[in-house]
Amino acid sequence: MTYSVKFLPYNTSVKVDDNTSLIRAAMEAGVHINASCGGGGVCGKCRVLIEKGNVEGGVSEHLSSEDREKGYRLACLSEVASDIVVRIPVESEIDISRLNELTGSRHTAKAAYSNVNELRQDGLFIPPVEKIYLELAPATAGDNQADVTRIINHLRLNHNEHRLTMDLGLIRKIPDIIRQGDFKVTATIIRPVRKDGKNKIVNIEPFDTSSRNFAIAVDIGTTTVYGQALDLHTGEVLSQHGVFNSQISYGEDVISRIIFAEKGDGLEILHQKVVENINTIIEKILKKAKIGRHEVTTITLAGNSTMTQLLLKINPSYIRRDPYVPASILYPPFHASQIDIDLADHTIALIYPGVSSYVGGDIIAGIMASGMYRTSELTLYMDIGTNAEIVIGHKDWMACTAASAGPAFEGGGVKFGMRATKGAIEDFSINPVTYEPMVITVGNQKAKGICGSGMITITAKLLETGVIDSRGKFNQSLDTRRIRKTDDIWEYVIVYKENTQIDRDITITEPDLDNLIRAKGAMYSAALTLLKEIGLKIKDIEKIILAGGFGSYIELESAITIGLLPEIDPEKVTYLGNGSLLGCKINSLTNALRRDVGKVVNMMTNFEMAATPSYMDHYMASLFLPHTELNYFPKVKARLEKLRK
Amino acid sequence: MTYSVKFLPYNTSVKVDDNTSLIRAAMEAGVHINASCGGGGVCGKCRVLIEKGNVEGGVSEHLSSEDREKGYRLACLSEVASDIVVRIPVESEIDISRLNELTGSRHTAKAAYSNVNELRQDGLFIPPVEKIYLELAPATAGDNQADVTRIINHLRLNHNEHRLTMDLGLIRKIPDIIRQGDFKVTATIIRPVRKDGKNKIVNIEPFDTSSRNFAIAVDIGTTTVYGQALDLHTGEVLSQHGVFNSQISYGEDVISRIIFAEKGDGLEILHQKVVENINTIIEKILKKAKIGRHEVTTITLAGNSTMTQLLLKINPSYIRRDPYVPASILYPPFHASQIDIDLADHTIALIYPGVSSYVGGDIIAGIMASGMYRTSELTLYMDIGTNAEIVIGHKDWMACTAASAGPAFEGGGVKFGMRATKGAIEDFSINPVTYEPMVITVGNQKAKGICGSGMITITAKLLETGVIDSRGKFNQSLDTRRIRKTDDIWEYVIVYKENTQIDRDITITEPDLDNLIRAKGAMYSAALTLLKEIGLKIKDIEKIILAGGFGSYIELESAITIGLLPEIDPEKVTYLGNGSLLGCKINSLTNALRRDVGKVVNMMTNFEMAATPSYMDHYMASLFLPHTELNYFPKVKARLEKLRK
Repeated sequence: MTYSVKFLPYNTSVKVDDNTSLIRAAMEAGVHINASCGGGGVCGKCRVLIEKGNVEGGVSEHLSSEDREKGYRLACLSEVASDIVVRIPVESEIDISRLNELTGSRHTAKAAYSNVNELRQDGLFIPPVEKIYLELAPATAGDNQADVTRIINHLRLNHNEHRLTMDLGLIRKIPDIIRQGDFKVTATIIRPVRKDGKNKIVNIEPFDTSSRNFAIAVDIGTTTVYGQALDLHTGEVLSQHGVFNSQISYGEDVISRIIFAEKGDGLEILHQKVVENINTIIEKILKKAKIGRHEVTTITLAGNSTMTQLLLKINPSYIRRDPYVPASILYPPFHASQIDIDLADHTIALIYPGVSSYVGGDIIAGIMASGMYRTSELTLYMDIGTNAEIVIGHKDWMACTAASAGPAFEGGGVKFGMRATKGAIEDFSINPVTYEPMVITVGNQKAKGICGSGMITITAKLLETGVIDSRGKFNQSLDTRRIRKTDDIWEYVIVYKENTQIDRDITITEPDLDNLIRAKGAMYSAALTLLKEIGLKIKDIEKIILAGGFGSYIELESAITIGLLPEIDPEKVTYLGNGSLLGCKINSLTNALRRDVGKVVNMMTNFEMAATPSYMDHYMASLFLPHTELNYFPKVKARLEKLRK
Repeated sequence: MTYSVKFLPYNTSVKVDDNTSLIRAAMEAGVHINASCGGGGVCGKCRVLIEKGNVEGGVSEHLSSEDREKGYRLACLSEVASDIVVRIPVESEIDISRLNELTGSRHTAKAAYSNVNELRQDGLFIPPVEKIYLELAPATAGDNQADVTRIINHLRLNHNEHRLTMDLGLIRKIPDIIRQGDFKVTATIIRPVRKDGKNKIVNIEPFDTSSRNFAIAVDIGTTTVYGQALDLHTGEVLSQHGVFNSQISYGEDVISRIIFAEKGDGLEILHQKVVENINTIIEKILKKAKIGRHEVTTITLAGNSTMTQLLLKINPSYIRRDPYVPASILYPPFHASQIDIDLADHTIALIYPGVSSYVGGDIIAGIMASGMYRTSELTLYMDIGTNAEIVIGHKDWMACTAASAGPAFEGGGVKFGMRATKGAIEDFSINPVTYEPMVITVGNQKAKGICGSGMITITAKLLETGVIDSRGKFNQSLDTRRIRKTDDIWEYVIVYKENTQIDRDITITEPDLDNLIRAKGAMYSAALTLLKEIGLKIKDIEKIILAGGFGSYIELESAITIGLLPEIDPEKVTYLGNGSLLGCKINSLTNALRRDVGKVVNMMTNFEMAATPSYMDHYMASLFLPHTELNYFPKVKARLEKLRK
């Protein structure tokens, strides 16, 4: 159910779902409310007056009983329960006019939901691993065929299963299991990618376990590792968890990790670190979803080429050396336990294929999840992470490239950076007169840090209000104690320590902004260079798909304001979230995707930025907010000029 | 070159190859010469007079200079070098007439040579593993495809190789190897059994190693384990070695080993023991043939179903329990190192498929080696070993069965039993007057023990001369010190200790003869029962193929005399030797065989002797020499009656 919320004195309205908090509704409407703590009623600053309609909650000891009777509530604690009219107390008329200038409809990219139902409708919901319950005829003197033969013949005759194989390891278990189950067993079968391939029986369990069939999807980012547990009967995500990639201690980006891997037992260490991360995630998500390790039949993993080679313990040295050669594009299925992943011996690991040293399995996973390989619209796919990966094309052709962006979008290289988990500042606005902030965190909790989408919005808002200039430097003359110099570094205090979970002031610093500018510069300039190389322009793009684990959603105007995205109609932009993880999820659910992925890899043309002389020029020109060449961003230019008039 | 050798006073001639020793020529002619040491000129008893023609050697200090001048030589040291006439000194006329009765042409079964040349002529000499040398284009900025892709594309385009796969383990090695070889590498490819299967690249080595491609063939017998090193370019056997199966300490037959395997870590122990045997053999044969472990691309192993399951560490318990179910018939190829075989990680192990719990891969290997699955003659295949395995049929159908025979034919359960290696007594005759023996050993050395073919001939000759009766008991009244009682056991001294290598008298005892009678009884009665079950008679058999590691050849009349073989024209009998080992060898040389083996396994009908009530009756009736029912052996009956008149 949706309700209308009208904010006074701005006369701005917004439609929101029921149970949306008032502070989110305000952010959505582009209306500023001072709110310093991130939510949860801690700071008590987001006092609003409900003039019409009902909210649930919103009462707090920060409000006097008199105020409460008048209808005052805390916006962060109030949930919309009808059409309402809300008045925001303002301190001066200047405030109102300035704030009005900033008001305007916001565009967050729409999420492209994973298409499980679509798969099901199209008859493509065929997980690569299936469990089949078999009631075998018990062995007798007249029928004493071998145990394995009995299983294979039964599958052939009663389930029309052919071209069956199994490994020695499984054969070893069968004589005892078949009798333990009194000749009633469940077979787990992994399907081949090609129709003429073999169906491999990977497990035989006693009795009927066919209803318990689960998969794990894992995205191995340079900065973060995410995993999900999936039910292969419903396609549902049962649980998920993410951690920082522990390899970070040995190098922030892929190049420094490759250099570390080249020395002594560096490769072994980096391999172990990421496997530990994966095992931590597996433990959490299985426990949460109440799944036994032996009930997991596949784990699909995607990462860039370096992450993939480190995971598989393959020397990544030639990835960083001219002419930048990865070990392999395709990897065969193997037993997860072979690389020390803590799952049962029968669990099969599937690795997403990549294209080149710098366009890896994470991107291909995203492309598969986005469905862009099936559309005829010219699509720009941007994966926003430690590495900037760009794909342009549609069902008939694709071109890709990559550049190193640094970890700023994922919370790395940022003083209070964090992943988009509870307590992460994910949205932000600023009062252009008082420079007081409005902060929203994931989960409406006291703030812990800043995630990628928060960084983008904070940077955009600081730029719009003149708190920083186009080089990301603070305006030291502004009259606010929030801008200050600590240990010789300029910063803006977003949340004071009494309103945080970490008992420290949460700030954004000039080095943080430097990192963000370099990251967005790498991203934009890679896209621009690739477009130029293939003879296209920004205006030819019919659709943009954004991927990245930087937050639950991204505020598009902010992304355009800082020059991360080209200036484009926000309606054309779709936000995929963690495309790599989504691709792993869909891979776990349908073999149709596994069949298509080879085609996608083959049609992809790779461009090396390092071998493209114009890239460095484009990159240097991108190290401004939004860009040195303001003609690329006419609307942003006009808006900034208007705001700073 | 062959020469004629005439023995006086018997007027018996024989054709032999040049360089045949005179003592072997005499044995071949059925002429007895007292010779107690096995050869090598030790005892000096085999004094003969060369009346015409030339021999090489034969001079010894056992001969006086006078004798030497007259033309006396030691038969065991003399090699035939022209047509010759030889006189054997005899002590009395009685000797001559009695000896003459025993004289007669002998028939040793002809060896069926492995058909490498035949394979080559038929274009079937296609080893399942091939090495291909690749000169790859080095990676450049314009061509920086992944290393694995480069190899696979090169094989596709330049060698018409398709459907290629490789394992993660190999992918790990490739980036460094490809550069170590400066983009010149050798790929090792294992071929699928079915044409539509995948070609698996199992190794990539730097530079050109394609000329070094070797295989190992291993027969795992219940009593003995034999191995050979093969050159996959020439098909030649480069070296071979055999050892006793160390599992013997835990049980002589398969049943007692299964019982041991069922307790505690029994399975692990038996697995380790046979793997140790295999590793010992591998070390010896590789050293001898100067082959590096990494140059071995496949190892093919065959054994009965219990030996196979113990090797693969698969619980064999259900093999011995009604209804006698083996774990599997077919086993997939796997890495030899997976079962701790001490070869390189890339070496592929191929296991011969079996048919049932008691007709295993060793028999199928023999069937494949014998070619009986390709002929239209009705063939009886008998594998003479610890287990008696019988196959009857031809290209259109086959029936098989098995019975436990005990290890007597392989040197087990016999006081001085040994394998058919140097020093093993392999042929024997006896003077019917003096009861003095004529002994020939493998390699013409001082005797060490008695091998299977020796046991058969010794038993037959003792029976023919009345030294033992049809129950295998000694005639205690004979006037010879060679028949004696030691520690309450009757025995015949074959070689006195001064003429042995072991410094002990080598004897054959009544318990030895008991074991041999039970072994031959199991063999014969299984063949008879199977024939009856399928409605055939002995006379329907057009061909007999004998297999078994019991000696380098078998003396057919002796085998018939003791009732091991049915009474049949010796011309119809072929001796295959170790059929299991030969099958492994041929499997290493051609994929054609691997394609046919599935068909053979599928056409085979298995009969369980335990489920066939008449078997026990036939077995009990077979526990005599040659048989209780002498009508089965009319010629033997007539001969024995004549000799003992």
